[in-house]
Amino acid sequence: MSIANRIRQKDIGNTGFAANSNIEGVRIVNPDGTNNLKKTGIPFYERISIYHSLLRMSRFQFSLAIFAFYTSINVVFAMIYFIIGVDHLSGVSATGPVYIRLLQAFFFSSQTLTTVGYGHIAPSGILTNFVASTESLFGILAFAVVTGLIYGRFSRPRAFLIFSENMLIAPYKGGRALMVRAASYKNNHLTDAEAQLTLALHVDENGRMVTRFYQLPLEIAKVSSLALSWTIVHPINDDSPLANLSKEQLLDSKLEVILNIKAFDDHFSNTVQQRTSFTYKQLIYGARFQPMFGRAGDGEYTLLELDKIGAHTPAELPELVEA
Amino acid sequence: MSIANRIRQKDIGNTGFAANSNIEGVRIVNPDGTNNLKKTGIPFYERISIYHSLLRMSRFQFSLAIFAFYTSINVVFAMIYFIIGVDHLSGVSATGPVYIRLLQAFFFSSQTLTTVGYGHIAPSGILTNFVASTESLFGILAFAVVTGLIYGRFSRPRAFLIFSENMLIAPYKGGRALMVRAASYKNNHLTDAEAQLTLALHVDENGRMVTRFYQLPLEIAKVSSLALSWTIVHPINDDSPLANLSKEQLLDSKLEVILNIKAFDDHFSNTVQQRTSFTYKQLIYGARFQPMFGRAGDGEYTLLELDKIGAHTPAELPELVEA
Amino acid sequence: MSIANRIRQKDIGNTGFAANSNIEGVRIVNPDGTNNLKKTGIPFYERISIYHSLLRMSRFQFSLAIFAFYTSINVVFAMIYFIIGVDHLSGVSATGPVYIRLLQAFFFSSQTLTTVGYGHIAPSGILTNFVASTESLFGILAFAVVTGLIYGRFSRPRAFLIFSENMLIAPYKGGRALMVRAASYKNNHLTDAEAQLTLALHVDENGRMVTRFYQLPLEIAKVSSLALSWTIVHPINDDSPLANLSKEQLLDSKLEVILNIKAFDDHFSNTVQQRTSFTYKQLIYGARFQPMFGRAGDGEYTLLELDKIGAHTPAELPELVEA
Amino acid sequence: MSIANRIRQKDIGNTGFAANSNIEGVRIVNPDGTNNLKKTGIPFYERISIYHSLLRMSRFQFSLAIFAFYTSINVVFAMIYFIIGVDHLSGVSATGPVYIRLLQAFFFSSQTLTTVGYGHIAPSGILTNFVASTESLFGILAFAVVTGLIYGRFSRPRAFLIFSENMLIAPYKGGRALMVRAASYKNNHLTDAEAQLTLALHVDENGRMVTRFYQLPLEIAKVSSLALSWTIVHPINDDSPLANLSKEQLLDSKLEVILNIKAFDDHFSNTVQQRTSFTYKQLIYGARFQPMFGRAGDGEYTLLELDKIGAHTPAELPELVEA
Repeated sequence: MSIANRIRQKDIGNTGFAANSNIEGVRIVNPDGTNNLKKTGIPFYERISIYHSLLRMSRFQFSLAIFAFYTSINVVFAMIYFIIGVDHLSGVSATGPVYIRLLQAFFFSSQTLTTVGYGHIAPSGILTNFVASTESLFGILAFAVVTGLIYGRFSRPRAFLIFSENMLIAPYKGGRALMVRAASYKNNHLTDAEAQLTLALHVDENGRMVTRFYQLPLEIAKVSSLALSWTIVHPINDDSPLANLSKEQLLDSKLEVILNIKAFDDHFSNTVQQRTSFTYKQLIYGARFQPMFGRAGDGEYTLLELDKIGAHTPAELPELVEA
Repeated sequence: MSIANRIRQKDIGNTGFAANSNIEGVRIVNPDGTNNLKKTGIPFYERISIYHSLLRMSRFQFSLAIFAFYTSINVVFAMIYFIIGVDHLSGVSATGPVYIRLLQAFFFSSQTLTTVGYGHIAPSGILTNFVASTESLFGILAFAVVTGLIYGRFSRPRAFLIFSENMLIAPYKGGRALMVRAASYKNNHLTDAEAQLTLALHVDENGRMVTRFYQLPLEIAKVSSLALSWTIVHPINDDSPLANLSKEQLLDSKLEVILNIKAFDDHFSNTVQQRTSFTYKQLIYGARFQPMFGRAGDGEYTLLELDKIGAHTPAELPELVEA
Repeated sequence: MSIANRIRQKDIGNTGFAANSNIEGVRIVNPDGTNNLKKTGIPFYERISIYHSLLRMSRFQFSLAIFAFYTSINVVFAMIYFIIGVDHLSGVSATGPVYIRLLQAFFFSSQTLTTVGYGHIAPSGILTNFVASTESLFGILAFAVVTGLIYGRFSRPRAFLIFSENMLIAPYKGGRALMVRAASYKNNHLTDAEAQLTLALHVDENGRMVTRFYQLPLEIAKVSSLALSWTIVHPINDDSPLANLSKEQLLDSKLEVILNIKAFDDHFSNTVQQRTSFTYKQLIYGARFQPMFGRAGDGEYTLLELDKIGAHTPAELPELVEA
Repeated sequence: MSIANRIRQKDIGNTGFAANSNIEGVRIVNPDGTNNLKKTGIPFYERISIYHSLLRMSRFQFSLAIFAFYTSINVVFAMIYFIIGVDHLSGVSATGPVYIRLLQAFFFSSQTLTTVGYGHIAPSGILTNFVASTESLFGILAFAVVTGLIYGRFSRPRAFLIFSENMLIAPYKGGRALMVRAASYKNNHLTDAEAQLTLALHVDENGRMVTRFYQLPLEIAKVSSLALSWTIVHPINDDSPLANLSKEQLLDSKLEVILNIKAFDDHFSNTVQQRTSFTYKQLIYGARFQPMFGRAGDGEYTLLELDKIGAHTPAELPELVEA
């Protein structure tokens, strides 16, 4: 009896991924929640949202990008001032070496771009004045963009969740259950959190490997406050597509489980969402999560130990009864 | 038997468009999703949201608008300084030709507006000082508006969807179905996407042509993740207002199909929405969409070919059985 | 038979307003949608959201507020510089008349606050330098607040709806219906609009006048697109709290009808909401709304005439049958 | 018969807090709505959202933080200019005492950071120019962050609710009810407000104290407009987990009641949320709230007295009938 035949439940049919996507053994969702997907057919600059990219790059990369941008713009304007002639920059000696004149044009440019405008170097002549006037406008607009980006970066609503590294097949009410664990690690407060577990299974259908998607019913799919850790539990009962699969079959099935958590963030006053994915390589058969919080400080508060998010101990599972 | 009589389903009655709107053969929704609609009766400046307009114009138009605004303001203030007298601008020769004095007033204005304030030209006298003080305040406020607009422009939540150029009547489960296709083309991630197909039909009702609206039931109206392409399918079964319409009747009916997709954007953490419309001129009878994604890179990822969004091949449809 | 006894429907009981609020004949909601309500018991500055107030005042008031703020700050700092001594402002003559020295301190202050800093007046001495350094910091922070306010003002999601001046009792399917009309007057696009009509009725209950609230069922309470005008219709059938009330009873009942419209705005990608209220003085018995849109421009588009939002013509109503 | 056995209702099982959390007698939610919770296991700087912290600190703390930041940055750059040598700052005497030279470097730094740039002190030499150029860039970026923070602070959607200090057991329809009261104290307008009362009870389960959570059904859980005060009422009938608990048992049970109110704010056009918690120490047995609003100003408006939010008078409760 094949795995495909065992699965009793109707698959979802369409989750934005095609049933016949023919992507055996390949990750569908990356651990960071992005799709394992490339797009072609339209130009790169149309395909990429620069705003999104600048918002998602690391703090270091972002700082570098801004510094590079600032330097390039100053180099360009310095060249323009130099070509017009530094004799139109009062305060700059027109007879010094080229690199000094270039540097002074560069510094004048930076003083104009940032609108610091000390004035010990000042534009004279119509053309230089016009360029300087344009540069200061450009500077204000460019830094308006940067201000927006910086604000967008740190005010971007995010769920700030950590997930267990593994998914467990754990003992549950005399049977088995698939369990993963999530916790909020920042000082924000999530309410009305909803979890969704989607199973992707590579099954043999008339001799062709296809990927099928199944919604996994959860013991509790919604909690009113996600203050501590949350163990998301899919009971492997008769309604489960994983019912009656042995340890070997589970590990052979190249299954991937996509976890999506959506919640309302109190501070952002916004809905936030985070995704991750667990592949069959992250499956541990016969284990349970260790508790990760308890009373502390003479019972004055509850302590949540975030480094234990993935901590688990071996646990015996009940015998599988062949149907 | 007229088309109107064939239609078995109750129309929606009210979709914001009137049933008796008497707009035969006219597009109701433009391809870009805006309504084909003009408004009169209140002044233009009250009717127009300047904010919305500045947000939606092209990048080129926006840059031009800002440059024009910057120049005009400087011209106005230059005139004021000139009228007061450039002898109240220390650093400016009061005896030069008029155009030079005007230009210097203009450059002083721009240095004040952008707050660069080199100081080689500086205000002297109470009136000029007062004007300069006002101008620098005005400059800060004006650039605050511009900063807001720029931020508003690039942070505006959008769905970034492309749609197939045509709607197809395709073979479907032994019958026929109306199909359109959508895909997300940016590096954002849409979840919980919902599609809505609204049919607008111009029908003869007691000798008068009226427009009737029908909600078209979809095979799948909601997907949990819109990662790849999504073919939106309306099965033309007995419940469909299009049931039993022949190819000729379909093309004669001057039908318009409005597609609305609403989704949650992961990056904006916001609900986004995009609309488009297909008229009978975009209807292709007997065709199916070509697949537009598949395994790539040695099976390492999925490749989505966006330029194939509208690609279709002819397909034979089953014979219509007259009821 | 009293009005109270006629009313068959259960009232809502709680709408945030109390049933026993004892406010006979007084408007509950103002025409602009605000509550006709005052609050006491906590200090004014805690009760008032300055942010909200600055966001909602007129453009003229807001400009005035900013100009007054700017002037006051400059006056305060001018006084400080003057007290320290203008001899610590290089470029300012310490021997001129008092008003000239004060004015020059004022202008130096404004050049520092706006960071224009020409430099023809510059601080000298530790104390003056320290004050100037603080003022420029203060200036940047103050204008950051102003930038935020300006952005908040023009990006504030609003519904931009106009309403008919009157509510009508109009003929409807052989009976009567209460009708009001709304339309969107800007170039934004509202989808998924929902209307809610709440009736407030002052009724005699055991000899005491109390206010009761009733939700009025609507013919159509939700439209998928609010592109044209929307006539909100409450059919006065046997389920209506207004059933069997004669013209005189309706006008005597001092009724107030609160209209609330909630919709999704395409441009803001946000839910927007607008309220208004109609009192018995705005009730017209026996009238119907005139159409306010139609085909225009050789059938090329639909024209919506916003000045006709309240236009109505007399219409005969069916005889009331006493129950 | 123990308290645990009396409770007939199924508990919620998971509210983000664990049933076996073993936190007897300890507050779960603080009065200000935050969780009484500490987190360990990941570094402090990853656990803390600086953005959230800066958004939530008091106005005074925030001003202090900015002033401290501004001073530190200037001190750092002053040191750099001093080390390079103040002889590269034209306008600064290189022969004065050290503290004067340091102060002048400090003032030059502040003039550069804020971009006021008077110019009476100006950089000369490549290194000093380069540092000044970098500092003005840094200044603009830093103030961009501050601008964003300030905007984030005052535009943060908040519910602005006050709650009664106590929860009351009040007479209600011949029986008893648990009542708390909330009111909006600002000039914002909340619609579609939803209340949720969660009971946390410390019960003896097989000799071990565990915390159980129960959703308390409300008489009215949603109001369309939260204009006046709202008394949230949980009727203690047979379905209530508090049914048949005597005054002593209630006070002994160390119960905690968590109140959560979610509403739509008209001005922010956003969903806002506020939480609070009442412990058994705040329980008053046999009392009812005093009315806190009524007609005022010759019946022209409604007056809401916010200082009466917690005002209550003793009230006799019906005898408990032992089941």
